[in-house]
Amino acid sequence: MGKTVALAVEKGITIGAHPGFPDLSGFGRRNMQVSLEEAKAYMIYQIGALQGFIKVHGGKLHHVKPHGALYNMAAKDYSLAKALAEAVKAVDNELIFVGLANSMMIKAAEEVGIKSAQEVFADRNYQEDGSLVPRSLPNAMIHDDQICVDRVIKMVKEESVMTVNQEKINIKADTICLHGDHPSALLFAKKLHRALLEENIKLNSVT
Amino acid sequence: MGKTVALAVEKGITIGAHPGFPDLSGFGRRNMQVSLEEAKAYMIYQIGALQGFIKVHGGKLHHVKPHGALYNMAAKDYSLAKALAEAVKAVDNELIFVGLANSMMIKAAEEVGIKSAQEVFADRNYQEDGSLVPRSLPNAMIHDDQICVDRVIKMVKEESVMTVNQEKINIKADTICLHGDHPSALLFAKKLHRALLEENIKLNSVT
Amino acid sequence: MGKTVALAVEKGITIGAHPGFPDLSGFGRRNMQVSLEEAKAYMIYQIGALQGFIKVHGGKLHHVKPHGALYNMAAKDYSLAKALAEAVKAVDNELIFVGLANSMMIKAAEEVGIKSAQEVFADRNYQEDGSLVPRSLPNAMIHDDQICVDRVIKMVKEESVMTVNQEKINIKADTICLHGDHPSALLFAKKLHRALLEENIKLNSVT
Amino acid sequence: MGKTVALAVEKGITIGAHPGFPDLSGFGRRNMQVSLEEAKAYMIYQIGALQGFIKVHGGKLHHVKPHGALYNMAAKDYSLAKALAEAVKAVDNELIFVGLANSMMIKAAEEVGIKSAQEVFADRNYQEDGSLVPRSLPNAMIHDDQICVDRVIKMVKEESVMTVNQEKINIKADTICLHGDHPSALLFAKKLHRALLEENIKLNSVT
Repeated sequence: MGKTVALAVEKGITIGAHPGFPDLSGFGRRNMQVSLEEAKAYMIYQIGALQGFIKVHGGKLHHVKPHGALYNMAAKDYSLAKALAEAVKAVDNELIFVGLANSMMIKAAEEVGIKSAQEVFADRNYQEDGSLVPRSLPNAMIHDDQICVDRVIKMVKEESVMTVNQEKINIKADTICLHGDHPSALLFAKKLHRALLEENIKLNSVT
Repeated sequence: MGKTVALAVEKGITIGAHPGFPDLSGFGRRNMQVSLEEAKAYMIYQIGALQGFIKVHGGKLHHVKPHGALYNMAAKDYSLAKALAEAVKAVDNELIFVGLANSMMIKAAEEVGIKSAQEVFADRNYQEDGSLVPRSLPNAMIHDDQICVDRVIKMVKEESVMTVNQEKINIKADTICLHGDHPSALLFAKKLHRALLEENIKLNSVT
Repeated sequence: MGKTVALAVEKGITIGAHPGFPDLSGFGRRNMQVSLEEAKAYMIYQIGALQGFIKVHGGKLHHVKPHGALYNMAAKDYSLAKALAEAVKAVDNELIFVGLANSMMIKAAEEVGIKSAQEVFADRNYQEDGSLVPRSLPNAMIHDDQICVDRVIKMVKEESVMTVNQEKINIKADTICLHGDHPSALLFAKKLHRALLEENIKLNSVT
Repeated sequence: MGKTVALAVEKGITIGAHPGFPDLSGFGRRNMQVSLEEAKAYMIYQIGALQGFIKVHGGKLHHVKPHGALYNMAAKDYSLAKALAEAVKAVDNELIFVGLANSMMIKAAEEVGIKSAQEVFADRNYQEDGSLVPRSLPNAMIHDDQICVDRVIKMVKEESVMTVNQEKINIKADTICLHGDHPSALLFAKKLHRALLEENIKLNSVT
């Protein structure tokens, strides 16, 4: 962990924590019924551990985005979302809470009184309520890079997106999620980056 | 973890981190040959995680004492001791590094430039080089409470202790280790506490 | 683990596996949304590991009872119960599958074609559908030892139990769950044992 | 794990257990000072768990090769090697114990009375005592594929190998270790396979 943090600090890349469930063999991607106290403790523990490394390397933690199943559960469960936002605030009330656009996480951040960033997904289909089509369904993912790019640009410029049922819903894109564990992830990131610049969309760290 | 930290902050008890090896089933009590980089990372990770909880509850981390096998190895291995002390300093250069009296840990703290506290053991026999008689040997432990109390008072007032071979060696007692997992631990703590007060020895948090 | 197994084999105590979720910090007591394939794998892995020790000490595995949240989820979820029963059968088709009386686990064992044992709880209140009153509700537990003993005897002799709403439901008691982690657990076990003998109820390993 | 085992059984590939230290973050590659009882328990646990999957898929465990640091420590430490061999025998006395050629593991298997297979390394330099040049030294590895192939053929046909100091030592090659986590691992495996066949060396599962 130290080396990655050192590199990020050196390059001036903003660093975020990505805390999740203590489910190593499931990579934090399986729902777990933990108490709100436990959920807060996992947040504080993991954020604190990362802050240790960041402090050592002279940086500062910038945002927190819950990971995997914790993120998905908090997007729909207001009590959980509020507990997570409270944990973030308790650790450092200047941290930005990154959550699914239109979700309970954004609402909770507002209620708790911390900054939030609405996250959109380039390669996922949306449902009418603003949630993502679950991965268990066949049309969860959008596989055509160009369609993904076009959707992101529309989300940014028009603040809307077409759902899987061809309905237009409002969405605000403060930050875009790109998964890094796909073989063509870097290629897609470059393509999207170029397309955004061509549309005169400036890219910044969320503030 | 949160509740214990909250209580300590509320009661004004100084809080220390007790980081060790990632050996859950062995409770960190088995030697592991980790690299100096890995040892530092374990320190930073565990100290950072605890600092998260302390920050949330409005307290401040006071000292760091390596746990179990990590402590024992660092007491004898100067490179390891120095790596641990460097990790402590990097996280917060006002932290006190608690180490075995007379050991490499105290020497390393001095070299690295952080405060240290020399720790003595009430119920353990010492060898001539200041190290503890290993638990694998029959006379590692002293089982008579009164002898333990007398030894501590002598260590504090005369700055010396009799080794297992009846040789007198110098020792400085900044802090005394009492294990809390023995059924009569609380009783012994009270007995020692009273005896120290009767000898007009003041008890403070290490500074 | 080896010593416990050795002792059980020596004393002729039947041995059961108690496999659960890979949730160490939650002691397997929190619901996890794992796939049926994952659930089977956890069963096979943990049963197999225990069988290793049993084989070494010359014994034979007798039954399998899922642990904690896995047990509670399988009691209500037929697909999960069936997956667990299939895993048990695949490992050894003579094993007895211990599950909550009247639950999906008993039904699944029948469907899959393995022996099952209906488990009842001495100190828990029941709901009309045969499920336990959840621990989150105030009257989940029965704290009076004599009432617990009387209930068990009635369950064994009359094959019925009064629910928390004073309705009589049918229940078959092949095996009784006593928690061992309560300070008075041994005392209660002796009391129940004596009471059962006084009622001429013979105690055997489930067959 | 289930799928890999199922495939191996289906294809008739002999299956071996590869048990190691419970050091997940270090991948079992760091020395740990565990007791002989603990070492045996880790062997039995991991072999048993694998046997669970093998039994489910209708196969049979064929051999056991300790993993990583456990292997390296046992190669030099006769007490540890004997404990591991005893654990293997206790689980199934027909299992083959795979150990470093010429090492304490082979001696221990003989003493304990189980079959062993002497393992040689295609891409590692040897020391005069038959041990491998440690990875911490610059010439631990041999990077030229053709040299590796030639060395293996010589080990098999002439039962000798040149040490890193150009001394000839005796070695018996019952089985050859190829690491699978190198990008060109498959290519090298094919090259070696072809070369062995061209030398009329038959390849079998160890018996």
